[in-house]
Amino acid sequence: MPNLNHPDRLFPADPDTRAIARELYDQVKDLPIVSPHGHTDPRWYAQNKPFPDPAQLLIVPDHYAVRMLVSQGIGHHELGVRGLDGSDFEADGRTIWRLFAKNYHLFAGTPTRAWLDHTLEFLFGVDTVLDESSADAIYDHIAECLTQDQYLPRALFSHFNIEVIATTEAAIDDLKWHKMIADSDWDGRVITAYRPDSVIDPDNADFSANLDLFGELSGCDTGNWAGYLDAHRNRRAFFAAHGATSTDHGHLTADTANLSEGAAGLLFDKIRTGGADVAERALFRGQMLTEMARMSIEDGLVMQIHPGSWRGHSPTVHARFGPDKGFDIPKPTNYVAALKPLLDEVGMDPRLTLVLFTLDEGAYSRELAPLAGAYPALRLGPAWWFYDSPEGMRRYRQLTTETAGFYNTVGFNDDTRAFPSIPARHDMARRIDCGYLAGLIAEHQLRPEEGAALARELAYGLAKKTYKL
Amino acid sequence: MPNLNHPDRLFPADPDTRAIARELYDQVKDLPIVSPHGHTDPRWYAQNKPFPDPAQLLIVPDHYAVRMLVSQGIGHHELGVRGLDGSDFEADGRTIWRLFAKNYHLFAGTPTRAWLDHTLEFLFGVDTVLDESSADAIYDHIAECLTQDQYLPRALFSHFNIEVIATTEAAIDDLKWHKMIADSDWDGRVITAYRPDSVIDPDNADFSANLDLFGELSGCDTGNWAGYLDAHRNRRAFFAAHGATSTDHGHLTADTANLSEGAAGLLFDKIRTGGADVAERALFRGQMLTEMARMSIEDGLVMQIHPGSWRGHSPTVHARFGPDKGFDIPKPTNYVAALKPLLDEVGMDPRLTLVLFTLDEGAYSRELAPLAGAYPALRLGPAWWFYDSPEGMRRYRQLTTETAGFYNTVGFNDDTRAFPSIPARHDMARRIDCGYLAGLIAEHQLRPEEGAALARELAYGLAKKTYKL
Amino acid sequence: MPNLNHPDRLFPADPDTRAIARELYDQVKDLPIVSPHGHTDPRWYAQNKPFPDPAQLLIVPDHYAVRMLVSQGIGHHELGVRGLDGSDFEADGRTIWRLFAKNYHLFAGTPTRAWLDHTLEFLFGVDTVLDESSADAIYDHIAECLTQDQYLPRALFSHFNIEVIATTEAAIDDLKWHKMIADSDWDGRVITAYRPDSVIDPDNADFSANLDLFGELSGCDTGNWAGYLDAHRNRRAFFAAHGATSTDHGHLTADTANLSEGAAGLLFDKIRTGGADVAERALFRGQMLTEMARMSIEDGLVMQIHPGSWRGHSPTVHARFGPDKGFDIPKPTNYVAALKPLLDEVGMDPRLTLVLFTLDEGAYSRELAPLAGAYPALRLGPAWWFYDSPEGMRRYRQLTTETAGFYNTVGFNDDTRAFPSIPARHDMARRIDCGYLAGLIAEHQLRPEEGAALARELAYGLAKKTYKL
Repeated sequence: MPNLNHPDRLFPADPDTRAIARELYDQVKDLPIVSPHGHTDPRWYAQNKPFPDPAQLLIVPDHYAVRMLVSQGIGHHELGVRGLDGSDFEADGRTIWRLFAKNYHLFAGTPTRAWLDHTLEFLFGVDTVLDESSADAIYDHIAECLTQDQYLPRALFSHFNIEVIATTEAAIDDLKWHKMIADSDWDGRVITAYRPDSVIDPDNADFSANLDLFGELSGCDTGNWAGYLDAHRNRRAFFAAHGATSTDHGHLTADTANLSEGAAGLLFDKIRTGGADVAERALFRGQMLTEMARMSIEDGLVMQIHPGSWRGHSPTVHARFGPDKGFDIPKPTNYVAALKPLLDEVGMDPRLTLVLFTLDEGAYSRELAPLAGAYPALRLGPAWWFYDSPEGMRRYRQLTTETAGFYNTVGFNDDTRAFPSIPARHDMARRIDCGYLAGLIAEHQLRPEEGAALARELAYGLAKKTYKL
Repeated sequence: MPNLNHPDRLFPADPDTRAIARELYDQVKDLPIVSPHGHTDPRWYAQNKPFPDPAQLLIVPDHYAVRMLVSQGIGHHELGVRGLDGSDFEADGRTIWRLFAKNYHLFAGTPTRAWLDHTLEFLFGVDTVLDESSADAIYDHIAECLTQDQYLPRALFSHFNIEVIATTEAAIDDLKWHKMIADSDWDGRVITAYRPDSVIDPDNADFSANLDLFGELSGCDTGNWAGYLDAHRNRRAFFAAHGATSTDHGHLTADTANLSEGAAGLLFDKIRTGGADVAERALFRGQMLTEMARMSIEDGLVMQIHPGSWRGHSPTVHARFGPDKGFDIPKPTNYVAALKPLLDEVGMDPRLTLVLFTLDEGAYSRELAPLAGAYPALRLGPAWWFYDSPEGMRRYRQLTTETAGFYNTVGFNDDTRAFPSIPARHDMARRIDCGYLAGLIAEHQLRPEEGAALARELAYGLAKKTYKL
Repeated sequence: MPNLNHPDRLFPADPDTRAIARELYDQVKDLPIVSPHGHTDPRWYAQNKPFPDPAQLLIVPDHYAVRMLVSQGIGHHELGVRGLDGSDFEADGRTIWRLFAKNYHLFAGTPTRAWLDHTLEFLFGVDTVLDESSADAIYDHIAECLTQDQYLPRALFSHFNIEVIATTEAAIDDLKWHKMIADSDWDGRVITAYRPDSVIDPDNADFSANLDLFGELSGCDTGNWAGYLDAHRNRRAFFAAHGATSTDHGHLTADTANLSEGAAGLLFDKIRTGGADVAERALFRGQMLTEMARMSIEDGLVMQIHPGSWRGHSPTVHARFGPDKGFDIPKPTNYVAALKPLLDEVGMDPRLTLVLFTLDEGAYSRELAPLAGAYPALRLGPAWWFYDSPEGMRRYRQLTTETAGFYNTVGFNDDTRAFPSIPARHDMARRIDCGYLAGLIAEHQLRPEEGAALARELAYGLAKKTYKL
């Protein structure tokens, strides 16, 4: 059997450092998975139905996988992505799988490759390298697995040793799947998180309708500022009742504002009637981050900001295939000026936990670590998205630890829609963090027992503590 | 004989990783050189005359060498750089060489040092460290070499194992040296590349005259928009007939535009009559990048953009010594917004190959890798200019591979005027890439046979394929 | 005795590289300390009184130590920081020390931890890990030490092997402590540096009063532009007479200007009467950098610019506790455009030495190394503030050496108020630089004897030469 996944993978090459890394890793590799932020579908856990065919499970919905093949000239539709225009697309899982397998070499050196090799071997027991020649056999094998009870969502949840997982739902979601899970006899802990972007961003295509529904669901009058804020309070409480311990905010920038109540109310009126200009719509989004922070102090929900992604950068792709098709591109993101209004208001309040993420690595050492290393309300989220990768995670630690330390970071987020890849992602993070700690020990910057304690915190403790899980 | 160039130079220090790197390198070190982008003088290959004295060959025209000595207080004129004002300058090669040798320690840790040590030992057989005491003997030795037939340009071309080299000529160049090469009985493959900056940039001092000449050479009426575009088509075809497979565009920014035909025509009229303001001149340059991309889809020429160099940052140096004297300084460069008009138009078209370069390393992981990892038209050029160096190339791989993979990169460009240094530059790139791959193998992220295949692609295959050579 | 400080700490993990690093370090570890820029209090050396209790010496005034605990929810006042509002604060050194010791784990992986462990062991002979259980014993031990003559400032100065140390005083300082030192029979070399920010920045709260005092002290009429410039010349000479060899400028940006004499005079008149707007005040600061550079050519004082710190980012903290309480956050900083007016005027003049610092690491390879690798007037200051750390110093070398070389850098600055930590800081810099050089030797980019010469330059020679000490 070839080493699809070598036991020492991702550890530093230097033998002494590697030995230390291995020892640290052995102490954390079997810790339960705490997944405080992600995008798996709660319906899976609610209904516990079999997953679809291998391509539909592992390729078609994975924007990492799709975009890499697209970047080399393969069409989204060839990869099974259904166009909004009803045009033809490949529906046959095996055909998609073969195309992917034939191009699997494109992923050399990427985390997609590492996650998939991990999934193939440890979830499905595959012992062959995936390529054109092995594609069919592996496809058949996985398809067969997916018919078995042990591959049902709840069985995998247990098998993956997940202690708790958070999904993310829009503020206007009815949380029916979470209710179904709660009402079931299953004891897996699946919680939601409050994501109000669609009722905060006036540029959302359905913003006005969303606000109407938001009013209905909350029983509050979303026609005025006070009622709109109450609606948030109401829905936050509803989400908390379904387990939520956090909110999440995906904004184009990290801009915040802190208007007087009067000014905010007037701004809301303009926003509500569609009369606000570009700058006012941006100001509103910024104001709402500060409002959300204030509410977090009231209700204890941990706040997360994920800024800086230019969603749907290609209008062609977006028009034909919709969002989340691999064409979200990071942009330069400022924090030090952008967050100031919010921080001036609540940054010194230790009751608030605000977790910051970035797609602009230039901000790690220049802005994010100094901010998190000073303000009690701030914590640094883990390396995100494109940087959820071996080198990305190493840079994250190298660029933040010396200024913010480890205890202003929050452990790992898998942040994924790809349920089968969750163990692979946590394993990668544990390996990289153990390798980083091993480097500090090898250079005599940490004592071994400190490294062991920190490895446990990074793999498990900090996520539980920060997200109140 | 001292190790001017140790056999293991530039390989990772860890012994296991080094052994892997050495093995990979052994498989690619003798591959022919494909040089798809550079600035050597086609006259050398056409006339095949002896090179001038050692200082004129290796120091005076090398802006890396000159600027470092200037930065320590030595005058350009002392290094043989002739002022435009007719003032005195050092004309004696030996005197220049001695001054350089005395200061050679300033280059410790720089690629200039590595390239020159490589050239001294492997081209000229020098076995002594260059310093003040050895300067004269080495000068004499090289001067003697340069009188021999085996040091004539065509002989070196063969000796260097160059399979093909591209030079870069202005759109209004007559390509007479390329014609002379083609008409000769020599079989070396020297091709041109289409660089239209001087007929695209309205800020070029000779812009209007250039456009007149451009019209003459093409037989098109460059007094109107349609004729101007036809002139480009005509000259592109002329360049392609002289072997060109690519175009190259050196712009201050990566800004692009995509105006309607009518608006573009009106803009051109203003530009042509000199009535355009700063913003309109910038808009024109941006529009022309999109036009060039459209023409590349028609005629198949690979397009390159080299943005972000503030040319001639010192007006004193520029006024006295002219361009390319070591005072071109990088500036922050945005891609994600700048390229959008062009990408919206042609970014999804796999018939286009647009190779992007940067002098702003902050863009590697934040913008360039995500863009190249999505858009089929985009590829990432290698680490450029200041980053054509061991650490620069390592950062390039570390910051781009996990998102864009290897196959969205294009192999190495030497991009040099310094013909004798070409083998040194390719050798450095091959060593660094093999070291990077060795690291992935040592960390069990790649299998050895994958690493070997990739080493070959990075050293040879990708350049040939991308540039259609 | 545990290894609070392992002999091999901070050296690369690879055994061969480590051995080289150790050998280089052995040759520089005992070189005298040259400290050309810092903020120790000259009163200490003048009065030579005992230092206060351990907490007041090592924790309360250290914004690195304070901010990290604050970031985890501990109040400034709990750490002994006295509020400007007269509110309660912890005054008991032992209580503060215990709180710090209990939280010492927060500093794992930070330079604060390394500096303090070094100080504990090598200055105070502590052989126990600092934590809650050891806090009292260590406190008592240090307190006892501080009563001994060998812990008086002048004794430590000798013990630390300080050859020369520069403090930094405001242009309106009377330099009485420096005078007292000069008039004493002590032979320690303590010099000042000219920091005119408070008479250059119109946004300084006391700007107008400062200018009045500046006029009095200099005997020049600071009511007009010519007199104001003369006041600078006068005070610079006064500072030079007290040993100063440098000036220092802490600006929010690196912006410079170069107005005509007439325009500068008119601008000054507006500034002096308080009638200047935001842009004019910024323009004045920029103009003054160019004036300072011109005066440096006249009087030979080395010029330093420390730009890009957003001082007192939290208004809450600033209002209650004042400046320098850990809430200074870096902001993006441009150099290539900002410095151009100054460089156009004096950048090619080798009589000027202008040392540039940055808190924006993105500028290292993109702007600072190319600028310093070309302009004779420019040098690169060492990794500053948050980047005065192992990884920070490594990045500094990796990102600047290949373009600017070693000889356009200036050795180490400890830049600290924390006198007891000075040996620890220089030791860290020497270890990291030796490790970096060892890496180049291990990769056969440098010969061992070159590495040894460079190690000495980086530890000692370049600081002396650059700062004319």
